Amino acid sequence: MLAHVIRGGMSESRHYGYLAIADTSGRRVYATETADSLPAFLRSSAKPFQALALVESGAADRFGLSETELAIACASHSGEEPHVRLIRGMLERADLSPEDLLCGSHLPFYEPAAHALIREGRAPSNLHSNCSGKHTGMLLTCLQMGWPIENYNLPEHPLQKWFLELVAEFCNLPPAEVKTGMDGCSVVCFGMTVGQMATGFARLADPTYWEQAGKPEHAAAIARITRAMMAHPFFVSGTDREDKALMEAAPGRIFSKGGAEAIWCMGFPGRGLGLALKVDDGYSRAHAVIIAEALRQSGLLTESEIAAFTAHQVKPLRNVRGLVIGEIQAKFKLLPPD
Amino acid sequence: MLAHVIRGGMSESRHYGYLAIADTSGRRVYATETADSLPAFLRSSAKPFQALALVESGAADRFGLSETELAIACASHSGEEPHVRLIRGMLERADLSPEDLLCGSHLPFYEPAAHALIREGRAPSNLHSNCSGKHTGMLLTCLQMGWPIENYNLPEHPLQKWFLELVAEFCNLPPAEVKTGMDGCSVVCFGMTVGQMATGFARLADPTYWEQAGKPEHAAAIARITRAMMAHPFFVSGTDREDKALMEAAPGRIFSKGGAEAIWCMGFPGRGLGLALKVDDGYSRAHAVIIAEALRQSGLLTESEIAAFTAHQVKPLRNVRGLVIGEIQAKFKLLPPD
Repeated sequence: MLAHVIRGGMSESRHYGYLAIADTSGRRVYATETADSLPAFLRSSAKPFQALALVESGAADRFGLSETELAIACASHSGEEPHVRLIRGMLERADLSPEDLLCGSHLPFYEPAAHALIREGRAPSNLHSNCSGKHTGMLLTCLQMGWPIENYNLPEHPLQKWFLELVAEFCNLPPAEVKTGMDGCSVVCFGMTVGQMATGFARLADPTYWEQAGKPEHAAAIARITRAMMAHPFFVSGTDREDKALMEAAPGRIFSKGGAEAIWCMGFPGRGLGLALKVDDGYSRAHAVIIAEALRQSGLLTESEIAAFTAHQVKPLRNVRGLVIGEIQAKFKLLPPD
Repeated sequence: MLAHVIRGGMSESRHYGYLAIADTSGRRVYATETADSLPAFLRSSAKPFQALALVESGAADRFGLSETELAIACASHSGEEPHVRLIRGMLERADLSPEDLLCGSHLPFYEPAAHALIREGRAPSNLHSNCSGKHTGMLLTCLQMGWPIENYNLPEHPLQKWFLELVAEFCNLPPAEVKTGMDGCSVVCFGMTVGQMATGFARLADPTYWEQAGKPEHAAAIARITRAMMAHPFFVSGTDREDKALMEAAPGRIFSKGGAEAIWCMGFPGRGLGLALKVDDGYSRAHAVIIAEALRQSGLLTESEIAAFTAHQVKPLRNVRGLVIGEIQAKFKLLPPD
């Protein structure tokens, strides 16, 4: 068990799952007992890896991407007005249109933005998709590489093949062992254990690892990408979101990217460590409680940094009238390294 | 495990839980191995029990409740216009106002109704709460019993004490062993194992049990309540809802009432059997798949009845663009009786 939901003093619901903290070698520094038992898909936590191609291809420089624009290429953004405006500008600069994006459209995660569209009788566009920044980055990479921008989402396209190689290299498994499926936004998604995900985020956190490995292009790209994410947490996520709250609670000490089906990955710059969480049932309501407890047990953030995060993200459970009816409690013990 | 979520041929997420089918004596006829290991709250699956008080007090007759009105007193309705209109009429007939309801307000479950309110810039009222029919029934019961209508939601109020006794009597446990908490709509909720919930629904399904037990008032009330639910599935739930689909798939052969945190209970009239499901994590997306499989293994509905239900409620999983990305599969074997 990772956490349970308490109502009237009784455990009403329970969340099981897997959590691992790993270093760049792939060693598990702290982990739940079952961390390597079942694979999961990285989902949107793959976005920083996909942004590697945007930087390493030269596309980010050719199109003059700002740090904010690089951050939103790694985002599951909330579809707020500043997000939509930023992506529109990136597309216009490359003579692309929102219709070139293959992410599909859904109402913004940010409720006031969603309600504004409904009030105005407007359908959401591709720009409101939480993945529109990543998809824009994909289009820019294709233009830079001279690849077709049609069907850039399919497994046969060289862009998706490149992503698979990057993910495998960072997460420390052979490309043939990476499971694949179709993501919510119609691109390829990548399956592996949380231990492998944590290794990937450790390798995003440590440029020296890549310099020593003779891959200076990775060293430069991860420094730039993680700096952009940490400098612009709002553009990686949105108002009241967990990724934003965590990065703002410990500025420059953590970068964080969640994904669908209750995936959450983070890296710790200067320490060469990564953390990955998968809640088995795909439900993320216990995420903040679980991560606060894991950071406490591992000592990866300080008590005051953790408190700054939980002050925003961990609240008692309230009912329709706002009355407190219970709380979510963490219930696990990480195993230290062998 | 009860079910898992498949993407790209891989199990991405998993739902664990508890399921029991019991008879009126409390015997488990079919059950998962762990059916009695952990209690859960009945939540909205308690509504048919709470409606017993509405009928047995004489309130349903005094206020001339129609069968439809009795059905909505057992409902977690979707806040559609016919639901709201029906409850408004019940309140007016008793000189009550929506402000007397203590359920709180939330946007209707039915998305077009929610969007209509947002478009019109109107806040949802207590009438839109999925529990407003039950709360109206509670107010009518208080009027009939001569009890104050203030604070009818609190554990100290005689109405809530009566509910606790009824739930304990039907579910076959001593009142002192029923766990209590505050529900989403601020009334008392009742905790017990799924085996006990299934027994309660078996006893809702069998008037002869109560006649033999010397409780003809229960026999008459359950016949009237379950007939109302089965005759008006829309008023127990709403458009495209699982309770409605299941009752429409096997008319007169099953009554069904789901609850929050992934509870689902049903009874089988004429057979004296009840079924209760709790998905451990509180997430109900696998409900239709799990129940279809349990009904198949137990033979409680016919293949064609199950097919009529799954045709509406079990679909492949699709992404934002409507592309099929996977499916939910049941994965459990019910144990037959000892």
